Amino acid sequence: MQIDPSPLALPFPVLPAIAGVTLRVARARYKDWDRADLTFAELADGTSVAGVFTKSACASSEVELGKANVTQGHARALVVNAGNSNAFTGWRGREAVEAIMAQTSAALGCPREQVFVSSTGVIGVPLPQHKARAGIAAALEAEPCGWEDAANAIGTTDTFAKGAGASAMVGETRVELAGIIKGSGMIAPDMATMLGYVFTDADVAPAFLQEVLERANRQTFSCITVDGDTSTSDTVMVFATAKAGNARISGWDSPGADAFAAALANVCRKLAQLVVRDGEGARKFITIRVSGAVSDASARTIGLAIANSPLVKTAIAGEDGNWGRVVMAVGKAGEPADRDKLSIAFGGIWTARNGVPVEGYDEAPVALHLKGEEIDIAVDLGLGEGSATVWTCDLTHGYIAINADYRS
Amino acid sequence: MQIDPSPLALPFPVLPAIAGVTLRVARARYKDWDRADLTFAELADGTSVAGVFTKSACASSEVELGKANVTQGHARALVVNAGNSNAFTGWRGREAVEAIMAQTSAALGCPREQVFVSSTGVIGVPLPQHKARAGIAAALEAEPCGWEDAANAIGTTDTFAKGAGASAMVGETRVELAGIIKGSGMIAPDMATMLGYVFTDADVAPAFLQEVLERANRQTFSCITVDGDTSTSDTVMVFATAKAGNARISGWDSPGADAFAAALANVCRKLAQLVVRDGEGARKFITIRVSGAVSDASARTIGLAIANSPLVKTAIAGEDGNWGRVVMAVGKAGEPADRDKLSIAFGGIWTARNGVPVEGYDEAPVALHLKGEEIDIAVDLGLGEGSATVWTCDLTHGYIAINADYRS
Repeated sequence: MQIDPSPLALPFPVLPAIAGVTLRVARARYKDWDRADLTFAELADGTSVAGVFTKSACASSEVELGKANVTQGHARALVVNAGNSNAFTGWRGREAVEAIMAQTSAALGCPREQVFVSSTGVIGVPLPQHKARAGIAAALEAEPCGWEDAANAIGTTDTFAKGAGASAMVGETRVELAGIIKGSGMIAPDMATMLGYVFTDADVAPAFLQEVLERANRQTFSCITVDGDTSTSDTVMVFATAKAGNARISGWDSPGADAFAAALANVCRKLAQLVVRDGEGARKFITIRVSGAVSDASARTIGLAIANSPLVKTAIAGEDGNWGRVVMAVGKAGEPADRDKLSIAFGGIWTARNGVPVEGYDEAPVALHLKGEEIDIAVDLGLGEGSATVWTCDLTHGYIAINADYRS
Repeated sequence: MQIDPSPLALPFPVLPAIAGVTLRVARARYKDWDRADLTFAELADGTSVAGVFTKSACASSEVELGKANVTQGHARALVVNAGNSNAFTGWRGREAVEAIMAQTSAALGCPREQVFVSSTGVIGVPLPQHKARAGIAAALEAEPCGWEDAANAIGTTDTFAKGAGASAMVGETRVELAGIIKGSGMIAPDMATMLGYVFTDADVAPAFLQEVLERANRQTFSCITVDGDTSTSDTVMVFATAKAGNARISGWDSPGADAFAAALANVCRKLAQLVVRDGEGARKFITIRVSGAVSDASARTIGLAIANSPLVKTAIAGEDGNWGRVVMAVGKAGEPADRDKLSIAFGGIWTARNGVPVEGYDEAPVALHLKGEEIDIAVDLGLGEGSATVWTCDLTHGYIAINADYRS
């Protein structure tokens, strides 16, 4: 099935090269297609690594090994396979990952646990070892490539290449960050997974890198949803090559720590939003701002209940300011809410305040807002200071077409 | 918008009259339509009542008052308004419910708290009191009607009338149960709610009636989902008129208690399944059996995670035995699961066992099963003795058409 590019697609940005990162791609032919599907990032000696992974109880061996190995804090290589997620493949799947780690560590002369592997695609088929082996050999001999080539090579049913960058001043030193991501539904036709990678030349201690990644993740990747379905392989990693020459950032007291954390969160937010923009069948990009909740965590849960509600998502698809469905979603979130303190706005226009529709509410500007591509929903609970912003897309015939009409 | 009858519709069954229950319907004209939309059930003096209600934090005044008043255990009347849910209408909504209770209690000469009111339909518009007043007056003068008329009158976007019955031997006495229900999505275009009512001539003490209803609810209404969206008005009530002349059932030790509880659960299960059969856009009725979980509650959570997954529901719509999506849904359920002990079957044919695809698995019989209207998915966790069965429908273009294409 050929899927048209998302109407919400953005052009691939200009991203700087990151010293200490060499990208290469190759054709492992995990599927019967004519494109690069193996991405190999070689990382300079001394690169710090951090990662966050799917909470799925059925995670792939790639995720299990990545989670275990990220704790030692250093990385020399990242290998990403597209077209086969290698999930739910038992010991054969694990063997395939270990073979990739062994081949790569031998080629680079590094410990095996410094090689990280991700795979995305069909579930339940062990990754063919001979294809991986040949693909890695080809990648090791290939010319280095740029970010957009790598972003395309990690994609599966993505309809456009996704990348984002930022820079930060760490003391007197400017450090650069560049990231790429793939993902379209939490799972696409027999494909799976959101995979995101951020590379920086900053010198950051692994433990602190993990801390700032987890903090950024809570406010970015953990605040997006396309269909509420969580993949078995979701992975976001950060690699810091230490080539910029800044004084090492090892905690919040280090010069530039705040600036670096903000830049990382910035890249993560852009990447997360790009996944929503490529959401299966998406025609509208929806921002949901929740305020007045009893806590930030409660606000996020309520925001995701709204963002995951098929009735809210179809209302937006239908350009229908149906705030009754937002009330419904708030009510079912399982978080503290008081019907008679609840206020709801579309595009900055309050349609309901303190539990009742606004008197003489003019539907025309709301209708105009809903015709656009960028939809804003604000919900104020009127209870406390907790707030959160989440992002999602609408639910359209395109989603059904991609996931039901197409037979795997 | 005219919606075609569900392809999964069943004919309305023959149901017995229940002594002590008089049904009447009237045209309150809550919407601009030519149909009965107010249902009035008069109940004999001494009728026991029990109820379970939505857990929504934004529940309607009908739900709030019903929840409070059901605790006194007796009922003389039930009034159901269709076309306006009266939810999210603040003090004016509450006033409308109280006016109905006052008018009805004056007419019947009973305490106000023995009058139960439900409303279903658009959210955010106070129920017009003058329409309710005239409708109740008309109902009080109307000829009694049968179950199917009442089932039609409580409906909103339902595509067929839904009822179910059962009988049980309590000692030497045969008692009858008859129930009606409405519901199609948790919410339909600007309409809301699942409302279900079971009537019986059995003599049952209110506290025990509540206990057996809650038990039945856990295994029936709480095990269905159309779209995972919970209404602000969901209500299921049981009325027991005590006209059958059985020795009162007041606890599990009373003769016939088990038989009565089983009959009530039977009616609840049939009614719950009818709601799924009228699920918005449904073309397939899906039964998901989960076994081997650490507890029954864990099995139910996993079953609902599968049943609510848009990717599983679209796979079934596409007649695609995509068990990778079932693995994904088990993984995200947040309950104990071991990838390498997980087994999955479609239509009784195991496609994956102990975490790997079944060797030489023949797809033909599974494909044939998936072409049918009744789909069975079995999941065995291999961990313990917990089990649950949940019911849902597929997710089709019809759901999007009903909820997005149509403008309220």
